[in-house]
Amino acid sequence: MIDCAEGTQIQLRRSRLKMQNIHNIFLTHLHGDHCFGLMGLLSTLALLGNTATMHVWGPTGLKEIFQPQIDFFCSGIDYTIELHEVSHRQSAIIYEDRSVSVSTLPLRHRVPCTGYLFQEKSLLPHIRREAIEAFDIPVSQINNIKTGMDWTTPDGEVIPNHLLTTPADPVRSYAYMSDTMFAPELAEKLQGINLLYHEATFTKEQELLARQNFHSTAEQAATMAQKANVQQLLIGHFSSRYKDESILLREAQTIFPNTVAAYEGMTIKL
Amino acid sequence: MIDCAEGTQIQLRRSRLKMQNIHNIFLTHLHGDHCFGLMGLLSTLALLGNTATMHVWGPTGLKEIFQPQIDFFCSGIDYTIELHEVSHRQSAIIYEDRSVSVSTLPLRHRVPCTGYLFQEKSLLPHIRREAIEAFDIPVSQINNIKTGMDWTTPDGEVIPNHLLTTPADPVRSYAYMSDTMFAPELAEKLQGINLLYHEATFTKEQELLARQNFHSTAEQAATMAQKANVQQLLIGHFSSRYKDESILLREAQTIFPNTVAAYEGMTIKL
Repeated sequence: MIDCAEGTQIQLRRSRLKMQNIHNIFLTHLHGDHCFGLMGLLSTLALLGNTATMHVWGPTGLKEIFQPQIDFFCSGIDYTIELHEVSHRQSAIIYEDRSVSVSTLPLRHRVPCTGYLFQEKSLLPHIRREAIEAFDIPVSQINNIKTGMDWTTPDGEVIPNHLLTTPADPVRSYAYMSDTMFAPELAEKLQGINLLYHEATFTKEQELLARQNFHSTAEQAATMAQKANVQQLLIGHFSSRYKDESILLREAQTIFPNTVAAYEGMTIKL
Repeated sequence: MIDCAEGTQIQLRRSRLKMQNIHNIFLTHLHGDHCFGLMGLLSTLALLGNTATMHVWGPTGLKEIFQPQIDFFCSGIDYTIELHEVSHRQSAIIYEDRSVSVSTLPLRHRVPCTGYLFQEKSLLPHIRREAIEAFDIPVSQINNIKTGMDWTTPDGEVIPNHLLTTPADPVRSYAYMSDTMFAPELAEKLQGINLLYHEATFTKEQELLARQNFHSTAEQAATMAQKANVQQLLIGHFSSRYKDESILLREAQTIFPNTVAAYEGMTIKL
């Protein structure tokens, strides 16, 4: 999960997403609208009998502000909460498992702030079900074939791998950039990713205000998407001054047509 | 405001109650479901341009756990936040203004916990509008008459005060007791109050469980109301084990008929 604002546990329940499936929370920065729901979520997980370790990632200050609260409010709970401070000055891979890696993206905000890039690892090809049947391949050999081996039949006939498999699904990638000023130096890291979430607090008319407040315009978000050749751009974090948020969407689409505007409860399938 | 759970600012907005009208927050104890909304509320008040001092009251631990958060999240805001720790071991008047006094009620819970008693101060009688006209009483004399003076007409005729005024409205009082075990020693302090909120986590069948968890049964809440001769009892804080909460209400009403069960968004006029 990325960020954890007040009421996150309520929104999770509304979305019918199981809180117990969350094992990593990536906080971008320590402003209240990005982290005031953390203690409630951690407490409710304890009440639900969670036993799995929860890892919370965030920039400098994370331990200073949350460790005392965890010690105070979560004493005697049945699971471990680990706080990990990450650098907001340089990109680094901070998390890896069999299927995904997570890197930090140094953002430009008033306080230490980091975005995150989620990259799926290369997947294995699929084995053709009809090949298993046709050549009577035992289950024990399926993984070998998925990793590239040919198959030799009992008669000594060699079946080349490409007849036994179909290509792996393409890997998916998602980057989250909020809150930040325009940070074009990150475009290289994000080349060709599937989805970029980029904040678009203001319209281009308010570019100065955006810069003063360490935020971006919709035009800047779209320029970022264009420079990084991403497949789709998702914009959000709109200033409440815009009663009609479609003005921000139109501004971004002028530069990067495949842009959508975020709304509460939105889901995007990659 | 009493207590401030996660999502309080959202509920206030839904209830169309102005956050800026709150100048005192009385926390009963430092469990998350009673205080995790505090930082969000204080931050939003700052964004709304609040300048009035906010006083937050609560038992021992309040400063230890909230002062660092206020220093971290609320630096540079335009109003003062004062934290006041109150004793959870003895009752004391902690707040007074022209119209109300607030006393603490030492509760019995797993952690330091205090209830609160709100008592309106004696009001002045009303002046009869027709008397003002009939005797041509100048505005400058109205307050004197409200505080008990008679009126002497230009002809020297003395009009006794009781002909000029109608009695003051009765003063109102409200006590809040949650979370707590049965605490009958407080009945004397609450004699005849208008409304008592008392937790009723369990039914009487679970009295042992209630005691083990430092909570009360509906029967105990009602017994408290009876001993204190309160006018009305409001019960709440029901365990989620009761799918049908009316069982708790009926249990209380057997002992104290004028009992109502709290629900989200409920308002009671005193």
